[in-house]
This record gives sequence, structure tokens and C-alpha cells, in this order.
Amino acid sequence: MSKENIKSTYEDSAKRMSGAQKNIGAELTPEHFNDPSLHIDLHNKIKVDYNSIEKSSSMEELHKWQREHVDKGDQTKEGYPLNVMIDPAMREMYQVVHKAGMTNVFDRFSEQQPIQCKFCIEGLSCQLCANGPCRISPKVPRGVCGVDAHTMVARNFMYRHVTIGTSANIFHCHQAARTLKAAGENPESGLKIRDAEKLKKYADMAGLNVNQPIENIAVEFAKWVMDDIHAPHHVESKTVEVFAPTKRKELWRKLGLFPGGGYSEVAYAQTRCMTNFNSDPVEFLLNSVRLGIANEYQGLFLLCIIQEILMGSQEITMKKQNMGLLKDNMINVVTNGHMPLLAHVAIDLASSVEWQEKAKAVGAEGIQILGHVCEGQQLINYEGTHNQKAYGGQEGEWLSQEYLLATGVVDLFMFDYNCTVPTMPIFAKRFGTKLLSTHPVIKLQGTETLDFIPEKMKEQAEKALNMAIKAFEERKAEHRETYIPPHISDTMVGFSTESIKKALGGSFDPLIEQIANGNIRGIATIVGCTTARYGQGGSNIFKMTKELIKNNILILSGGCTSSVMQYTGLTNPKAAEECGEGLKAVCKQLGIPPVLSYGACVDIGKMTHTAKELADALNVDTNKLPLVIGAPEYLEQKAVADACTAVALGWLVHVAPVPSITGSDVVVKTLTETTETLGLGKVMVEMDAEKAVQIYIDHIENKRKELGLN
Amino acid sequence: MSKENIKSTYEDSAKRMSGAQKNIGAELTPEHFNDPSLHIDLHNKIKVDYNSIEKSSSMEELHKWQREHVDKGDQTKEGYPLNVMIDPAMREMYQVVHKAGMTNVFDRFSEQQPIQCKFCIEGLSCQLCANGPCRISPKVPRGVCGVDAHTMVARNFMYRHVTIGTSANIFHCHQAARTLKAAGENPESGLKIRDAEKLKKYADMAGLNVNQPIENIAVEFAKWVMDDIHAPHHVESKTVEVFAPTKRKELWRKLGLFPGGGYSEVAYAQTRCMTNFNSDPVEFLLNSVRLGIANEYQGLFLLCIIQEILMGSQEITMKKQNMGLLKDNMINVVTNGHMPLLAHVAIDLASSVEWQEKAKAVGAEGIQILGHVCEGQQLINYEGTHNQKAYGGQEGEWLSQEYLLATGVVDLFMFDYNCTVPTMPIFAKRFGTKLLSTHPVIKLQGTETLDFIPEKMKEQAEKALNMAIKAFEERKAEHRETYIPPHISDTMVGFSTESIKKALGGSFDPLIEQIANGNIRGIATIVGCTTARYGQGGSNIFKMTKELIKNNILILSGGCTSSVMQYTGLTNPKAAEECGEGLKAVCKQLGIPPVLSYGACVDIGKMTHTAKELADALNVDTNKLPLVIGAPEYLEQKAVADACTAVALGWLVHVAPVPSITGSDVVVKTLTETTETLGLGKVMVEMDAEKAVQIYIDHIENKRKELGLN
Repeated sequence: MSKENIKSTYEDSAKRMSGAQKNIGAELTPEHFNDPSLHIDLHNKIKVDYNSIEKSSSMEELHKWQREHVDKGDQTKEGYPLNVMIDPAMREMYQVVHKAGMTNVFDRFSEQQPIQCKFCIEGLSCQLCANGPCRISPKVPRGVCGVDAHTMVARNFMYRHVTIGTSANIFHCHQAARTLKAAGENPESGLKIRDAEKLKKYADMAGLNVNQPIENIAVEFAKWVMDDIHAPHHVESKTVEVFAPTKRKELWRKLGLFPGGGYSEVAYAQTRCMTNFNSDPVEFLLNSVRLGIANEYQGLFLLCIIQEILMGSQEITMKKQNMGLLKDNMINVVTNGHMPLLAHVAIDLASSVEWQEKAKAVGAEGIQILGHVCEGQQLINYEGTHNQKAYGGQEGEWLSQEYLLATGVVDLFMFDYNCTVPTMPIFAKRFGTKLLSTHPVIKLQGTETLDFIPEKMKEQAEKALNMAIKAFEERKAEHRETYIPPHISDTMVGFSTESIKKALGGSFDPLIEQIANGNIRGIATIVGCTTARYGQGGSNIFKMTKELIKNNILILSGGCTSSVMQYTGLTNPKAAEECGEGLKAVCKQLGIPPVLSYGACVDIGKMTHTAKELADALNVDTNKLPLVIGAPEYLEQKAVADACTAVALGWLVHVAPVPSITGSDVVVKTLTETTETLGLGKVMVEMDAEKAVQIYIDHIENKRKELGLN
Repeated sequence: MSKENIKSTYEDSAKRMSGAQKNIGAELTPEHFNDPSLHIDLHNKIKVDYNSIEKSSSMEELHKWQREHVDKGDQTKEGYPLNVMIDPAMREMYQVVHKAGMTNVFDRFSEQQPIQCKFCIEGLSCQLCANGPCRISPKVPRGVCGVDAHTMVARNFMYRHVTIGTSANIFHCHQAARTLKAAGENPESGLKIRDAEKLKKYADMAGLNVNQPIENIAVEFAKWVMDDIHAPHHVESKTVEVFAPTKRKELWRKLGLFPGGGYSEVAYAQTRCMTNFNSDPVEFLLNSVRLGIANEYQGLFLLCIIQEILMGSQEITMKKQNMGLLKDNMINVVTNGHMPLLAHVAIDLASSVEWQEKAKAVGAEGIQILGHVCEGQQLINYEGTHNQKAYGGQEGEWLSQEYLLATGVVDLFMFDYNCTVPTMPIFAKRFGTKLLSTHPVIKLQGTETLDFIPEKMKEQAEKALNMAIKAFEERKAEHRETYIPPHISDTMVGFSTESIKKALGGSFDPLIEQIANGNIRGIATIVGCTTARYGQGGSNIFKMTKELIKNNILILSGGCTSSVMQYTGLTNPKAAEECGEGLKAVCKQLGIPPVLSYGACVDIGKMTHTAKELADALNVDTNKLPLVIGAPEYLEQKAVADACTAVALGWLVHVAPVPSITGSDVVVKTLTETTETLGLGKVMVEMDAEKAVQIYIDHIENKRKELGLN
């Protein structure tokens, strides 16, 4: 590398960094990065034209069109529904952004298409060491170190996907536990213990003393969780011991898959991924399943429990979704991510007369806080949020955040965790939105970041609300042009193990009876992300769900899939009409839709909980249930870790698009066949929605047969 | 993906796996993997011809030729020495392997050359999510998610390299601590506490009670280390607090770089690398430096201390290196990796009359254990090993392991950690070597793996030696053809902070005096791996070292660089003749070579220790020392983590080949310039050996000036 190459346009970074404080990176503004799109005066030069939008139909007409679209067969040759935006709000806002020539996720996907690399797609490219990068082909079957296709693919799978996803879910649980501890120790923090009974129940299961003040129980339980997360990998996890199904634990011990502390497990797995280290592909895959167990019990499962303790458990009710909930004359705060800890305190505050008055003092009708992505799906479900006065409803899925800012009415976009795209600073600058990260784990270029101090969440929430008020004042002072797509969906929300059981009169027996009598043939979870691949996400989710409910399969949704279910009307009790006769009868009797929104992707932790309770009620192992786990538009690393969880629990997991493992027949066969022979679940990859649905049905019918059900 | 594609040739994997025990992966034999090179009858069909070897010269002639070679200028256009094998033993054995048409590291490097991917080389390719893979170019400046070149390059740097390397070094320290604990608790394990004084010293620094039996101190100190490794990321590390230089700690706190527990740090860093998560490139780089601090104090530094406690500290003496040490009529055990815990117990055992008699009973002259790679460089230095009767000396660097097995006389190749290439099973099968992994963290296809049970190391070592005896019997029974390249180098070994201080009469003052008077201008560490890039590793290391000692710069070596120094004669006191006048006088006076072999790459932990003591003696911060850290042929992830350590400590770090960061000017500038302005060190990338040497000299002379030295 020549000296000249090292010279950069990034000239004042040294100067800026020399005055560095803790958040050095965040001190840098976008202008310091050598991206031409950031060097222009975004606010003035990028013209948007709200008048040219081709408006979407009314919600009724839209639902009709959505259904015609997926029936019509406008699909790729693999059977994936094609390149149509089925979210009416996103469709309108895309036009604004696209016509203005601004970078945005769908256009970027198109730009990447001609150059997507075949080696990378198949997992046959390795960039770990300085002798590489290496690519494997029939003519060149090994990398420089000697690695073959199988080891390369399996190792890429573990370190690129599984360790990252597992880390993230456990990290989330860790932050929730820190917050619970702070709630116990610091009554002035703004944090509340809203579900004391749940806290007592789980602390008791953990073997802790529950005959003491609830604050002390909170502290002890939080510590117990954090200690387990931080235990060594070679010491059996206490959370797994306490919460996992007994028969599964036996199997995991037999297979060497019973994990220790999650962070130590992650580091162990990363260690194995070094160059010239482990070179047995099956080991990487089994290690991934082991990580999947930690991912569940030190991650998903407990983070759900702890968040419910802090925010109130789920409550079944009707709520609203989509961009039509934004109000031009209100201060609009959108909270994004997956970990609504500070957001929740902000909603509490904003719901007070004091803060509503502050909003009115600057000419607003009030201040409202809306959720976005999975954070929003959690907030819409918790009784501690959705009954709050300042709660404004749910915005969209991860794909829509750039388009959401393009409305011009989002005053503050606060975020705490993943699913905040890197281009938010560009959109924020152009459309006058303030950005605020509420955890240093996520920093965006030139964007303010709060430290994570749960003891001071009230103070931090006040700061966030004041930022929003100021942004609103600026928006009004500048008379900025705005446009709000008028679309709003009605959706039933708040499903969870406990709320369903409560609705059924305190036991799962009525549900089991409906499964036993065949009105409900089985359950499919349709979870995870939406993909920009093949056009706007949602089409495959929508198409498959429609077919599944026609076949009397009850759906649990979680993640960006929940948004899709909401804007396509499938979480509305009216959708009972679209079910097969058995499921329709059940839905109508109970007044529920055929898709029960569990909320976020992390609420998969609730679904596994429900499944465990059903298996216990039936006195069978979890792998005997008539159940399929589907992630028909999976995107990222947490989804892969969650798939490993499902394999550990013995379930059939459907994923699409095709994961980057096709370069090794050993890896494909191990994940799609061999694991099942060990008593684990297996992965099924199928792009064609109709074929996939048939595989779900066949699997469920086989499981029914094994249980002796007709 | 069609159903047909999923069908594989891996047909009985399911059957095999259904009888699975803990080590499922290891149960599979190479035949189960779809690699044609594994399906042939290796033993009979691959013909090797030992008679056709073009023999290397005598050691004296060879040293002459090596020196002519690097002076002659047979270099790439970037100035890197070209495509010549300078290790005489490897050169001979390469011919055997290459002519037989067997896969081997140098031939594989050539095969990869025409297809190395420009995007991957520059760090501009991302395979994290299902919307990708994405590649960034001037025309397509962002990935689908919106990631720009800077974030993509910095994120790739952290999750592909830094988190893996940091995990590995901390993992190593963790296993050493587990072993120390077992040594305290289980006298029958075969483990010994050989350096009780050192244990007491460090336990005292840790604030532990040292007025108790040494076994108890061992257990308490081991627990203290493990607890720190497993602490949360947001709690300041105790090991860093106790062992890091005071001025550095102040700076790290100011910059937010003071780490918590290492495993939690790794998981935090992995979390940030998720899709649509952190998108500030500078944050990834600063996070990498923070990981570098954990890498040092919870990894390198303490693993060195603990291994010395268990194996005896370094002792300066003359020893021997290279394949000529193998003996046709002895049982040859080669131990490979970085963590010679079980290996050490095996050497203890094999040194007993009982085991030598067992060897003789099967017709061998005896049994010897030789070290390979960094494990060998540690064993050759510890007084507790190199004085043992069954210790046979040091084999080569990582590149030579396939060629080593091709001699046909290695009866057992045991390995515990990284730097065991994936093709070992092929070579083992063809040449009759038994393979044995001594830690489940590393499994090879179809290869036996022992559990890591330090309490039972004696029993496990017996098993290993019995395997070796059986392999020898088979070798002799089958009258297998063998060839041992006759080359052996004499090398001075055993340098470390303590052994140097002892040799200098108990203080660093004499060394500081020689630096002050200018006889020694400064110190360069030449550490890390050797690379297959541009031909056999070693040429760049050799060329640079020769120039540096001519310029009166004292060299500390560690890693595969030590092997290079050994087979080129630079660790022989005779090499004093090749130094500048000042250094020559010092070397002659003390009877030492100009290259002091500290041993393994992990002994960088000893070098930083020496540097801290020198800085303390001078009463300056570590970044004031006339010191350069060089890794002129770095290969893998631990080397990258170690570079981050050096940046944290304020040092100039030279790396070659070019790391995969050139796709971002922000990343390049931050690492090569900006970090220095913060009081940290910086990275320097230079391929031309002569230019690099000049940069070392200039840096050292500048630092001398700052210290007021002429």
C-alpha cells in the first residue's frame, strides 16, 4: 500500500478525535465520511414532491388487491411472490424517496443485483486470514490453509451468523436484567415493577427467597440471570436447568449440547472459528445448536419474562397500526429497536399532564410516542404501554424506516438496538428528524448517544422528550412540507402464553381440545424479518399465511411478520372468514383472528414458552407437537440463532431465502436431515410458497398421527 | 434450492450420528466428506519418491545462500522477497509432497492466486444478511441495508479478526487457569507447581492471601483470573487494574477503552456487528482497541504467567531445532498448538525410566517428544521442559506441518489449539501418523479428541504415549519408507523478562545503559506468523531482521518468526558478527545473539511485560519507549488482536501483508494516523522490507530524541 493511498479526505478526524471523550465515534459528523451523498446540503438540494404520489386505495380495496396479487401468480421462477409493495403507506412514501433520487433500501437492493457473488451466496468464500481471501470451486477444492468446502461453509455459518445472533439476544436479556436490578434498587429511576406476581413466580422457580420485599426479589433475580449469562462455558447453565423441558435436557446432555454461560459459549465458538483451528464441519453445526439453547434460555425466554415484569404482561385488545397514526400537529416520537426500556419510561412521562402541557406550550396538540419495528410490536402488546395516554400505536416493519422519516413529521427517532439502518442520519438531516441512540452499543455516524444508565432513565427520558419538543418547534418555524399516508389498520394484539390461557379460562385445555378434534390441525409460527429480496417484504409471509389458515393451521406471528399480518388484515378478527371451516369456527367462537400476534421477533421466547406448556399439558416432548416454525423472509443473525433454538427444541424450521450454506452437501444434509435423526429438529429450505405450505401441512399431519390424532 | 440438491453423497452420516456421543463430529471419518482426495486409498496410491530430493547444502553453506538471496533483490515489485524456501528441511520435503501430487499449503496458495477477489481483499464485501452478499464499488457505494464502505470495512475487521483473536487468547488463559486450579486441587493429576515464587508474587499483586499452602494459592489465583475473564463488560477488569501501566489506564478510562470481562466484551462486540446495528466505523476501531486490552491482560500476559508457574520459567541456554532431530529408530511424538498443558505432562511421563523401557520393549531406542509451531517454542524455553530427558527439541513453523508428516517418522501428532491445518488427516493417513486432539475446542475430520479434564492429565498423557508406541510398532511392522532431512540448527533460547534481568545481574539497568549510550539504538519485536504469500514464509522476516541488527536494533522474536530466526542462524550467538558495531559489542560481551527468542506468539505477553518494566525503570509511559512492534508476515486473527493490544499500549505496529481494510480511507487513516493523536499507537503497513526498516529506525530515533538520548 502506497503512502498516497493512506492519505484520505477525512482530514480533520485527527483534530476532532484529539478532543475525544467516551463517545469518540459519535463526535464525528457525517461530513467526515467520504460519501458524496453526505456532502451535499441535503435539506435544500434534495427536492421531494409529495403531490406526485399515486395514492393507494382504501383499506378495504387494498385488502382485496393484496389477495388478488398473491393469487395471481406474479412470482419468480422459484415461486416467490414478486416485486410488489403490499404495504400501502410504504408504497406511497417509496415514490417520494425514489423520485427524489435518495438512497433507499429497495433501490439499493436493485443496485446490488447484477454483482451478487456466487461464491459468497454459497458460503464458499473465506476472508479470515492474510493468505486469503480464498474461494472454493470444483477445480480449486481447498483454501490455502487446506480448508474444504464443508468446513468453510459451516465455519462461516457459525461465526458470521450464529455467534452474532446469540450474542445479541443474550446481550438484550443482560440489559433487561440490569434494568430490573435498577428498578429494585432505584425507585427514582422511573422504572416500575408492574408484574410482581410474575417476578415472584420465576424467582421461586430459580430457587430464590420470595418472602421478602419485591424490590429485593427483583435485585436477586436479576443477579441470578446475569450470573448465569456470565458463567463459564463448561459449567451447566442454571437457567437452562430451571426452564428447559426435562426430556430435551436429557437429550442435550447426551449429545454434548447442554450449554454453560452464554458469553463464554460465544467466545468458545469464536475461538473455534480461527484459521487452522476446528476443521470438522459437523462440530460447527452442533456447536451452533448448542448456542441456540443459550440463545433461548439466557436470551429470548428470559428477556421476555423480565420485560413483562417491567412493562406489564400482554393483554388482548384491539389497536392500530401504520403511518396514518402520525399527526402533523402533534409532536411525533418514534421509538425503534427491540429493547423498549428507556422508551417505556418516556411513554410514562409523556402520558403525564405536565408533559402534554409542555407540548401544547409550543403549539402542538400534544406529544405521542409510536413504536416501530419489533420495539413497537412489544409496546403495542404490553398492558403497561398500550393503555397509556401518550402511546400512539405501531408504525411499520424494518424496511419502512427510511420512508417513515420521509413523511417529514417524525420529530424524534430514538433507537436502542438492532434494525436501525445506517442511512438514518441522511434521512434525519433531510427531513428534520432528531436522532437519539439510547445505548452506546449502537452508534450512528454523527448521532448523539446516551449512556446506558438504567438508574437514570427518568432523566434520560426527559432529555429525549425535550429534544422532540425542540424538533417540533423547528419543524413548525420552518413551515416544512410534510405528507402523512392516510392508512391505518385495526389489529388485535396482546397474545402470549398467559393472555391466551387467561382468555381460555385459565388452562390450555380448550385449545388442546380444538387441536384434538381437528378443528385446528396444528400451529405454525410465522416469525422473523421481512426481506427486500424479490421486492417489498411481506408477500411471501402473506401468501403462506393465507394458505395455512385455509388449511386450519393456527398462526402465531412475531417480528416484522407481525406488521405484515397487520397491514394485510390477518390479525383482524374479520380474517376468520378466510380460514378453513374448523379454524373459522374456533375464531368466531372466541372472537379472535387466525393470526395471533405475539409481537416481536424476540417474543419467540414466548412462543417456545407456549409450546412447552402445550407439550407439558399433553405430557410429550416438544418435538412431538403438531408445530412448524416458519421464517419465510428471514434477514439476519438473530433469526439464524433462533432457527438453531428451534432445531434444539426438535422442530421443523422453514427458512427462505436460501441461506449461504449450499456450497456444502455435508452442511445441507446435516441441517436438513441428520439432526432430526438425533432427536433434534431440522431445517427446511423452500422458496416456493405453495410447496412450503404443503410441507408444513404434511409435517403437522405426521405429528398428529404420531400423537394418535385424526 | 431443489430437493435434489439436498441429496448428498454423505449417506451414512445419519446412521453414524444416531449413535452419537459427546464428540459426534469426531466420529465421522474423512470418507464421509465429499472430497475426492479423501476417497482414494492414500496409503497405497500416493507414491512418494524420497530418492529424487535435491538435497540442501550444509548449514554453513545454507546460511551463506540465505544471506545472498535476500541481498540479491529477488523481490516482488512491492519489495517483498520472492518465492524461495529458505528452510532447508521444508525445501526438501516440499519436493516429496509436490511431486506426489498431494495437496499442500504452497501449492494451494498458487491455486488460489488467479481468483483472489478484489472486493474481499479490500474489505468491501459483506455476507452478514440474507439481503446480501453485497459489494461496494464507486458506482454502488452502499450495501442493501445502507452500509457504506467505512462501516463495512471496520465491521468486517472487528468480527472477522479482532473478536476471534481476542476470544482465542482469553480462552487460552482460561484453560491455563483451569489447569492451575486442578494442579492445586489434584496432586495425582500429573500437574506440578514448578514456580511457586512467581505464583506467590502475582497472587500477592492480585491482593490474595499468600500466607497459606501453595496449593490453596494456586486455586485462589486461578479463580481470581477466571472470575475476571467472566465478569460483565461494564465492570472494570481487575486484571487490567492490577497489571496495566498506570498512565495507560488513565488514558483508557478517558477514551472509554477500559474493558470489563473479556468474554462479555467479545459478545458485546459481536452484538454490535449485527446487520443494521452500529454503523459508526470509528466505534468499531476503538472497540477493537478495547478488545486488544482485554486480549493482553485477560489473555497473553496472564497465560504466560500461569504457564510458567506450571512448567517452570524460561532459562537461557543452547538448544536445537529442525527436522533433523527426528530419529527413525525412536518413537517420535510431535506436539503442536499453543497450549502445552497436556504435552507437558506427557514429557514428564516419557522422561521416566518406565516409559523409556516401554519404548525399548517394542524395539525403539526410546521415545522423544518434539514441539512444533508455538507450542514447541514454549517448550524449548521452559526450564521445566527443555531439561527433561524425553524432550527432543523444536520442529518448525506452522507452514511445515504437512511436510513434517511426509517424513514418515512422526508416530503421534498431538495438538491442542490453533495452527493445526485441516489437511492433517490426509497426511496422517498416507504417512501412518496417529492424530490426537487434546481439547474438544479443536476437532479434525475423523480424528480422536480427548476431553479437556486437567484433573486427569496423567491418565490422558499415558493414553497418548500408548498411541505413539502402537504407531511405531505399525511403522516398523510395515517397513515403511521414511526420510529425515538432516538439518539441525543450534539456537539460544529461553529469553523472558525474568531470565534477561537475571542474566543482567538482577536489574534492567545494564540494558538501559546500553540503550542510553547508543550501543543499542532501540528494540524491535519481530513476532507473529509466517505467510505462504510470496513463497515460503520467512524471507521478509529474515531480510528485515538482518537490516535491523545491522542498525543496532535489538530484536525480540515470538511466534513462527522464532523458527525463521533459528533456521537462519540469527538466534545463534555467532550472529553477533552480523550486527552494527554497538550491538555487536553488547552481544559479544554478554555472549548472546542479536535476536532474543521469547518463544511463541503468545509470549508477546512477556514482551509487553519487559516493555512495562523498562518504561517503569525509565519512569515514562509505554508509548515513550524506542520500540517498534513488527509482524512482517502476519497470518491470522490472534495477530490482529495482538496488533490492537500494541496500539492500546501506544506503539507503532508494522504489519505485512496488507490487511483487508484498504476499501475505506476513514479506516486506514484512523488506524494509521488518528489513533496516535489520541495517545494510542498506530498501525503502519509497508510491504517493502527496506522501506519498513527505515521507518522502524526513524521511529526509534524520534523516540530517543523525545527521551533526550543521542
